[in-house]
Amino acid sequence: MPSDLERAMETLIIVFHRYASKASGNPSTLNRKELKMLMETELSSFLKSQKDPAAVDRIMRDLDSNGDGEVNFEEFVSLVVGLSIACEQLYQFKQRQQAGGVKKQ
Amino acid sequence: MPSDLERAMETLIIVFHRYASKASGNPSTLNRKELKMLMETELSSFLKSQKDPAAVDRIMRDLDSNGDGEVNFEEFVSLVVGLSIACEQLYQFKQRQQAGGVKKQ
Repeated sequence: MPSDLERAMETLIIVFHRYASKASGNPSTLNRKELKMLMETELSSFLKSQKDPAAVDRIMRDLDSNGDGEVNFEEFVSLVVGLSIACEQLYQFKQRQQAGGVKKQ
Repeated sequence: MPSDLERAMETLIIVFHRYASKASGNPSTLNRKELKMLMETELSSFLKSQKDPAAVDRIMRDLDSNGDGEVNFEEFVSLVVGLSIACEQLYQFKQRQQAGGVKKQ
């Protein structure tokens, strides 16, 4: 039986390919429309405060490190990493706050 | 309710902290003993072929980019990313094989 961590890695691959194969075009990369769908559905709690309609274009440009107009798995993972690191910093802050190391605002 | 992707990111944080707080020392980083425990328990399917007793030390050295002898969350995530990218390449190869694009060995 896979461990929690192995299942989490499998989820990254499954979620990426679920959206990469939605629209026509390359079924192994996310185009703008697929990335928008993925972010609206899978990252809604992170992005619900994001009202800027140009946000997806900006994120697409930032992620598309090889500049081909598509986001491949490696580029997608860098988004997941960035969000996870930000969440982990918040988690550590909350832990310190609970332990009394940081005063509540 | 969190999405599959949000849950996967949460799992990365929870699993890291589950092991980081096991031994004495810094509860926000993995020392050698904690990294070994994490890898043996959470990555056993990936590492079962790895019989080299020095493997954990080598991986520890590779991950510890700031050289403090401990693995922090950012350094841990780079291990997860590397393994996920390798798995995704295998997944794509298998998909092409099933579609008849790659001959079976």
